[in-house]
Amino acid sequence: MPQLRKDPIIGRWVIVSTERSKKPDQFDGSSGGPAEGECPFCEGREAHTPSEISALRPRGEKNKPGWNVRVLPSVAPFLRIEGELDRRGHGLYDVMNGIGAHEIVVETPQHIDNIADLPVEQISDVFAVYQERLADLEKDQRFKYVLAFKNYGWSAGGGRTKHSRSQLIATPTTPKRVKEELTGSRQYYEYHERCIFCDIIKQELEQKDRVVLDLDGFLAVVPFAARFPFEVWIMPKKHDCDFISCDQSHRVYLAKILKSVLLKLKIGLNNPAYNYIIHTAPFRREKHGYWKTINQDYHWHIEIMPRITRVAGFEWGSGFYICPVPPEDAAKFLREIEV
Amino acid sequence: MPQLRKDPIIGRWVIVSTERSKKPDQFDGSSGGPAEGECPFCEGREAHTPSEISALRPRGEKNKPGWNVRVLPSVAPFLRIEGELDRRGHGLYDVMNGIGAHEIVVETPQHIDNIADLPVEQISDVFAVYQERLADLEKDQRFKYVLAFKNYGWSAGGGRTKHSRSQLIATPTTPKRVKEELTGSRQYYEYHERCIFCDIIKQELEQKDRVVLDLDGFLAVVPFAARFPFEVWIMPKKHDCDFISCDQSHRVYLAKILKSVLLKLKIGLNNPAYNYIIHTAPFRREKHGYWKTINQDYHWHIEIMPRITRVAGFEWGSGFYICPVPPEDAAKFLREIEV
Repeated sequence: MPQLRKDPIIGRWVIVSTERSKKPDQFDGSSGGPAEGECPFCEGREAHTPSEISALRPRGEKNKPGWNVRVLPSVAPFLRIEGELDRRGHGLYDVMNGIGAHEIVVETPQHIDNIADLPVEQISDVFAVYQERLADLEKDQRFKYVLAFKNYGWSAGGGRTKHSRSQLIATPTTPKRVKEELTGSRQYYEYHERCIFCDIIKQELEQKDRVVLDLDGFLAVVPFAARFPFEVWIMPKKHDCDFISCDQSHRVYLAKILKSVLLKLKIGLNNPAYNYIIHTAPFRREKHGYWKTINQDYHWHIEIMPRITRVAGFEWGSGFYICPVPPEDAAKFLREIEV
Repeated sequence: MPQLRKDPIIGRWVIVSTERSKKPDQFDGSSGGPAEGECPFCEGREAHTPSEISALRPRGEKNKPGWNVRVLPSVAPFLRIEGELDRRGHGLYDVMNGIGAHEIVVETPQHIDNIADLPVEQISDVFAVYQERLADLEKDQRFKYVLAFKNYGWSAGGGRTKHSRSQLIATPTTPKRVKEELTGSRQYYEYHERCIFCDIIKQELEQKDRVVLDLDGFLAVVPFAARFPFEVWIMPKKHDCDFISCDQSHRVYLAKILKSVLLKLKIGLNNPAYNYIIHTAPFRREKHGYWKTINQDYHWHIEIMPRITRVAGFEWGSGFYICPVPPEDAAKFLREIEV
């Protein structure tokens, strides 16, 4: 059973993944992986994966061909679905069992590597599956948050198998970074009685120099204080705290703008590694006093981070990031790439 | 002039380094660098660097051979020493000029790559120089903190020139990560009236299973909630908030334990890339009410982070780290390596 351990000074939880424990000579995994034609995620090779949790499937039976998007349990989960949290002390330290969910969303039946190369309708189906899984995981009272994210390319933490997929991790605590964002936007709301993201959208639309795309109710901008060169955030222009409430037509618009941004990165930056992360409101917020205003003060969005620079000691030690490309230059560069 | 820009939601400052601005095709800098025999940091090649800021020099004149440790201004500084902060708003955003200091500490006159391979006395001299520079930079009222850190090896952000050196960055705001640590240890102190680091040291000495070395008044442990496999913290066993107050004999003991830990990492993990960062109390704390108790509640230490795993989207997006090696296993492994 993996453990969740809390740093007693900073309050950050760390997953100590005992089952994944590696010997010191096993860390360089940059080569290897299944040979050509042996990808376990391709249609027709369903027998090579664990039984599916869910699928968007126009035809065919469970664990057979005929699906568009397929959700699998991770074969090397960071957190385990079975058991109780058993929060406990260990001297001055805090520990709980590594309870959670870790699912893999296979985004296409075809052996395509980058979600940017999928048709818009297919990307929209991926979003529909994220929503279905988020809604299902919310029913489990042990979970406080689900992080939906993608690691594309080796330096972004991507795997060796070049088949487009993303991950869902349900956690028993609201992650520190998410909590900071929720707290920050609530504080802004309490003073201004306005959503900070709505204000950012307004200012960006007025100033225009950090806008990458303004399309069908979504805005893609390079954030004013971008941590990484060519970082892009996609936000719905209409206020909404919850990604799950994005309906069919807006899922298609979101797919269109995400595909455009990712293609601009692919063309302009020579197919870089990247991460994207969906930031949405935590589960069961209406029941928690602390998060009660969240429908007004939080605003869901997607953060896309190309991984083209190295993160060094200074960043780790200080929380200061150094962005070597001014956001205005990055936005102009991306704006001008035709896709 | 670089800018410091504040993320309006999280409150994190980012250095937008305009002078370092790169074109998108200039990011892969993994090859190149000066040829053999052309290292600008070697003794005898002082004319190839900017004029030194300071040096530990038993003989010879400024900018000539005869030094043990030499401090240079960075040729590509993240922050600039000249000018005023000029804090200002930009719509809802906060900006200030990128004022600060960025210095390079050349740790040996010889062309040696890893500080682990320097003699103990030489490493002790490096600490003396850190202290001298910290004390000097504290006099500049614009600076709130100095981060002393090392990036060793390419994946830790190290440069192409294989000559052992570290960096000092003076910042006009207390970095977010440092502030979290100060706040966390103060909260513990307010409740318990004890230093959290002293309590950690006590518990680690009792439990023993995360101790790597216990030597001459310093303790090296793998932290209970380590973020990275084989992460090691070195702490003085006697309470002290300020690295600068570490005297000559303790600098030698510190050099001895740091060298031992770094050699264990080098031997056990096949010369991994790593970062180390000195965590010490901020400047002029006695004048600031908020930090007044810091002499009691904070405890300086060094954090060493081998960089043998990749940090992926999950970590960036959540602040959750996944450590694939249990700290107890890592400590046992490092303890058993003879150096």
